[in-house]
Amino acid sequence: MSAFFRSRWVEVPDGLTAASGLAPGFRAAGAAAGIKPSGSPDVGLLVCDGPEPSSAARFTRSGTLAAPVILTKERTQLDGLRAVAVNSGNANAATGRPGLDEAAKMQGGAAMAASTTEDRVAVCSTGVIGVPLPGEKVLRGLLECSRGLSPDGDAAFAAAIMTTDAFEKRCSLEVALPSGTVRLSAQAKGAGMMQPNFATMLCFVQTDAALAPETADLLLGVCVKRSFDRITVDGQLSTNDTVILMASGAGGVRVAPESEDELVFGQALDAVLRQLALDIARDGEGSKRVGRVVVRGGNPGGVEAAARAVGNSPLVKAALHGGDPNWGRIVQAVGGALLDTAPLPVDVSIEGMQVCSAGFVVPHDHVELAGRVQRDEVEYVVGLPGDGHETEVFFSDLSYDYVRINAEYTT
Amino acid sequence: MSAFFRSRWVEVPDGLTAASGLAPGFRAAGAAAGIKPSGSPDVGLLVCDGPEPSSAARFTRSGTLAAPVILTKERTQLDGLRAVAVNSGNANAATGRPGLDEAAKMQGGAAMAASTTEDRVAVCSTGVIGVPLPGEKVLRGLLECSRGLSPDGDAAFAAAIMTTDAFEKRCSLEVALPSGTVRLSAQAKGAGMMQPNFATMLCFVQTDAALAPETADLLLGVCVKRSFDRITVDGQLSTNDTVILMASGAGGVRVAPESEDELVFGQALDAVLRQLALDIARDGEGSKRVGRVVVRGGNPGGVEAAARAVGNSPLVKAALHGGDPNWGRIVQAVGGALLDTAPLPVDVSIEGMQVCSAGFVVPHDHVELAGRVQRDEVEYVVGLPGDGHETEVFFSDLSYDYVRINAEYTT
Repeated sequence: MSAFFRSRWVEVPDGLTAASGLAPGFRAAGAAAGIKPSGSPDVGLLVCDGPEPSSAARFTRSGTLAAPVILTKERTQLDGLRAVAVNSGNANAATGRPGLDEAAKMQGGAAMAASTTEDRVAVCSTGVIGVPLPGEKVLRGLLECSRGLSPDGDAAFAAAIMTTDAFEKRCSLEVALPSGTVRLSAQAKGAGMMQPNFATMLCFVQTDAALAPETADLLLGVCVKRSFDRITVDGQLSTNDTVILMASGAGGVRVAPESEDELVFGQALDAVLRQLALDIARDGEGSKRVGRVVVRGGNPGGVEAAARAVGNSPLVKAALHGGDPNWGRIVQAVGGALLDTAPLPVDVSIEGMQVCSAGFVVPHDHVELAGRVQRDEVEYVVGLPGDGHETEVFFSDLSYDYVRINAEYTT
Repeated sequence: MSAFFRSRWVEVPDGLTAASGLAPGFRAAGAAAGIKPSGSPDVGLLVCDGPEPSSAARFTRSGTLAAPVILTKERTQLDGLRAVAVNSGNANAATGRPGLDEAAKMQGGAAMAASTTEDRVAVCSTGVIGVPLPGEKVLRGLLECSRGLSPDGDAAFAAAIMTTDAFEKRCSLEVALPSGTVRLSAQAKGAGMMQPNFATMLCFVQTDAALAPETADLLLGVCVKRSFDRITVDGQLSTNDTVILMASGAGGVRVAPESEDELVFGQALDAVLRQLALDIARDGEGSKRVGRVVVRGGNPGGVEAAARAVGNSPLVKAALHGGDPNWGRIVQAVGGALLDTAPLPVDVSIEGMQVCSAGFVVPHDHVELAGRVQRDEVEYVVGLPGDGHETEVFFSDLSYDYVRINAEYTT
């Protein structure tokens, strides 16, 4: 499993083994429909053929939701999805009423391609914003996908949902539950908002276990909170973020509520989503390192605000990029988030070395510290007054290429 | 006045003429005390000799205040300051109890140098954080300043408070009030937080008018809200920001509360502080353009959140740097700030051209728009539902050099 689970911040439970292809009961395909000028694959279709489908979903909370998100939230049975249609190269966001119409056409086409009804089809888009979606191209792509649907179509599907991701984000594994072995497959895309045209995060997870919709919703909710909700590239919320978990029931193993099966399945799902989230934070042109800030203290709101402020501070992120142990920027970012609380006694440790106690420098080995912040993953621990609350944020660094990509792209 | 007032976003009232030197009743000096490794001036002293001194001050609200801010807020008569001592090259922040002791020594030395009492001396520091302040050097610098105090010392004082500012931020002007002409001089430093080591914003304003402390406080409060409170370079709040207005009364013109004099004086102060604030947004290595976002709508909190989100969006700032009319990023930033409000009808205009109405693209001349976003100052107007509230944020762009400076600096 080491090829997929690369981060020390992911607890990989026992009983996972590598597999390939989609979880049984699913087929997928991808096609190049000409939405991307590059000619790369840009339409993907995922279909659940299982006897007992259930599903759960989470979406961006942006006030300017893209049309496919609005449509999927309002007009589908989110707990019983049978198919997901995705296009890349165009976000179908800020496209008004015509954008909703195009999203509906896409949903209709996918329903035909998947032999199901429209209310069982989620639609997702990612790419440029404010440009009308070329709906005919999407429909042609879905038609091509319908002819190529395959249990091993996860690679083609994953390729079709990528925008400018630097690497593929995909896994397939077997999970040994007490009641039997189930399969878990997942495909994600996104480099936070680092890429041109609002790269969005999308993630699709499949299992052949049988899950009640309530179980699917509970597990997905908990795991998203510990993964995609905890990453930031540049603090920019997308108009299109979508995560969907689907269970086919094709494997015959039932994950009952509050069972040992549910616990083990949840641990596996947690590990998968955390690794995929870290992959998103790590992606993006020019990114060299991923940081993790852990903040502890007595005030939950303050702990959360401080962690977000550190993870989104351009000064902290630039220092991470440069391998600079500039702990003063951590103190500054925390202070900037917690207004009118001075004097605030802040403790800071970096990669296990305490550098600041109660807002005052702790003598430390600068050479040793400088070496530790050159690692691929750098951990910062911040202590605020009080006890009982702890949170974490994973964040990418701020690179030259971030500016290059986002300054030089021209609509 | 055109040399100082360069921005179209500053309303310059009639009756202002260029002058030179400090307002009567003030002397200042700067010295190179060896705090900066470069040997550049790094200690400044400003003294008020006027018969009727009054003053007002505003400070950063950071939870991790620097020692000089804590000391000045707690142990001085902020409405009757006689002197300001400043050092650059060291922020005296995150320096704990010893830092407070050093700030107190600096205050004591400045009181001696200015022939006043400690409680009449404000102290300010700017520079590297987390490093003990070399207090002996500061004292030697203050001693040297005390020998060089001059009515024309504003240039030397302004030079001594700079860190890596790319250009000087200073003015001296005469203001024709109905009751007589008064002088207004000001010195500022800062490039937001763009510079290494937490460049702070500091601003000192002097007038020879006689102002009641309440008047000084009222005028400074209003003008700071319309200037330094409205700029962002990278959303990073400094530990040391300080703005101080001092009135000497040496000119004999009294600015009475609610008088025409107060109105005209306030307009002049407003213009000076807004231009200095814009200068800070414009400064910073690699910065090419300044943006202004105006947001209008019915919800004051939403209007403010949207304006801050646009001004702090790395995507918007990188597009500004690249001269890219990427209006979709404005929509995305607004949506990200106003969670769970979808579908949010957002209007966007750029440099007077409407590009988005109710979240949907408005056909526009792309060539013309591309030309307009190449200007030195680019204005974005965002319309949200409702009426009655409007705010603005001025922001710098995001440049390659921002990353270079902040990634390559090593503590």
